[in-house]
Amino acid sequence: MLVSLGGNAILKHGQKGTAEEQAVNVQNTAKHLVALLRRGERIALTHGNGPQVGNILLQNEIAKPTLPPMPLDVCGAESQGMIGYMLQRALRSELESGGLKVAVVTIVSQTLVDADDPAFKNPTKPVGPFYSANEAKQLRESKGWHVVSDSGRGYRRVVPSPTPLDILEKETIIRLFETGTVVISVGGGGVPVIREKNGTIRGVEAVLDKDRTAALLAKTLGVETLLILTDVEKVFVNYGKPDQRALDRVTVQECKKYLSEGQFPEGSMGPKIESAVSFLSGSPGRRVVIASLEMAEEALKGTAGTTITN
Amino acid sequence: MLVSLGGNAILKHGQKGTAEEQAVNVQNTAKHLVALLRRGERIALTHGNGPQVGNILLQNEIAKPTLPPMPLDVCGAESQGMIGYMLQRALRSELESGGLKVAVVTIVSQTLVDADDPAFKNPTKPVGPFYSANEAKQLRESKGWHVVSDSGRGYRRVVPSPTPLDILEKETIIRLFETGTVVISVGGGGVPVIREKNGTIRGVEAVLDKDRTAALLAKTLGVETLLILTDVEKVFVNYGKPDQRALDRVTVQECKKYLSEGQFPEGSMGPKIESAVSFLSGSPGRRVVIASLEMAEEALKGTAGTTITN
Repeated sequence: MLVSLGGNAILKHGQKGTAEEQAVNVQNTAKHLVALLRRGERIALTHGNGPQVGNILLQNEIAKPTLPPMPLDVCGAESQGMIGYMLQRALRSELESGGLKVAVVTIVSQTLVDADDPAFKNPTKPVGPFYSANEAKQLRESKGWHVVSDSGRGYRRVVPSPTPLDILEKETIIRLFETGTVVISVGGGGVPVIREKNGTIRGVEAVLDKDRTAALLAKTLGVETLLILTDVEKVFVNYGKPDQRALDRVTVQECKKYLSEGQFPEGSMGPKIESAVSFLSGSPGRRVVIASLEMAEEALKGTAGTTITN
Repeated sequence: MLVSLGGNAILKHGQKGTAEEQAVNVQNTAKHLVALLRRGERIALTHGNGPQVGNILLQNEIAKPTLPPMPLDVCGAESQGMIGYMLQRALRSELESGGLKVAVVTIVSQTLVDADDPAFKNPTKPVGPFYSANEAKQLRESKGWHVVSDSGRGYRRVVPSPTPLDILEKETIIRLFETGTVVISVGGGGVPVIREKNGTIRGVEAVLDKDRTAALLAKTLGVETLLILTDVEKVFVNYGKPDQRALDRVTVQECKKYLSEGQFPEGSMGPKIESAVSFLSGSPGRRVVIASLEMAEEALKGTAGTTITN
């Protein structure tokens, strides 16, 4: 089983982002994950990195007069080290305290994308801090960044979100997973890289959708279950309307219909459902379960969350 | 063979620390490492993180009015992600360009230390930025930090440098190494953690000497050769004096004598020689080679660098 942890498993909305807050959240997350391991599940883990890489980018920006800022790919790798460490430490604490001997490691991961991906022509994902109109102009001219007005709150850099094609460290991730190691990988979707014609691998300034990479990893690992843990109990249709309805069990066909109706917002449930469809299509034995962290065990039994199958 | 990369393999003295500079240095490092792999050597890698974690700490400090600063252990984990990614990317580029198929991964690593290590009573290692006398006073009072005067240049935080006892991810590191994966681990000596009585693992605000952890890892892996790459061609005695002498081959006994004479400065060659002694003691088949990156191949043949044996 691949478990994809949402940002709130590490940092909750409204929190400041201190190391202590994150440690408490991650320890709680670890308790739930160890409960799954105790059921005999073999688990691979991946996670979001939005708030963490956002803070790292902002630190780079604020410290820019003193220190050269790191590009987005390097900041993403930093966030993989940071979150991987916190998860490893918490999981190992929880496992050792419970007398379980299971190895837990983080693999720093690079995700291959295509240099000709159309996303590079149309950057849409806002990253990093807000700028003034003046700063925005300067950054466009000095760095060639795409900096756009963000709904009246100022200007923000936008970067492409290309399609993840391959995980460069997959052989090792598969091998560790198959021998029972809890392997944490492709955090934040992995560091996006392209392969140039001469074989050189180059990091690119882009962001990956973690659930799209999770679907790729789930296929790569050959798991039957992709468990997406997020901050909602279930998937809803007609959300916020009088006829709002929670989905308990839903098919890929229904998901495709709902997607075409625009039922799921782009920034949140949309990519999760698209990733679910991508993982399930043509593979009858698979399922995607979307649930809150607290209800993960129930959801795997089918008594909570939303289960998507063929 | 375990290769321990010095800071200059990633960032050279006098450079600003941009991502571009580091990428160029690391690509050059990768060329030399791939030359060793071509000789049929099985390689595990570790590396320093001084300049990188220093910059991350400084960014945290400068951005403190806006964002909660991360503690030293989390910053260390960030630097592992950052440097691991740069090394992985460069090595894979070099390997693929040369038609070699070898897996390269970074394992985010925690190094166990003893909460009762005497180093915790006597913090000596300066980390992070310089402070004014006033700031120093405030940090002592608000955070309980040890902040001391640093040779007239201002005030600096000092932290303990405890002895590395165990590498929590060792099983996985050993397994990957034994099957030919180039495994990058315990960067910067690993994130120092303690195990509390109830089994909880907790990060500590300390720094580890990378060469001491390298010696521990070399023993743990059971390798015969520990190759320490640094910015000098050889080890010297009577350094800077009229009777200065480069060492080509030297025994553990001679090293102990030189150490007791205070031949090697604390901040640079001292810990390397101590680590060499620790790795070699009682194990006749082993050797430690200390050399510059450029002379690594020659040094392994015995025609450059300094070789230490029993």
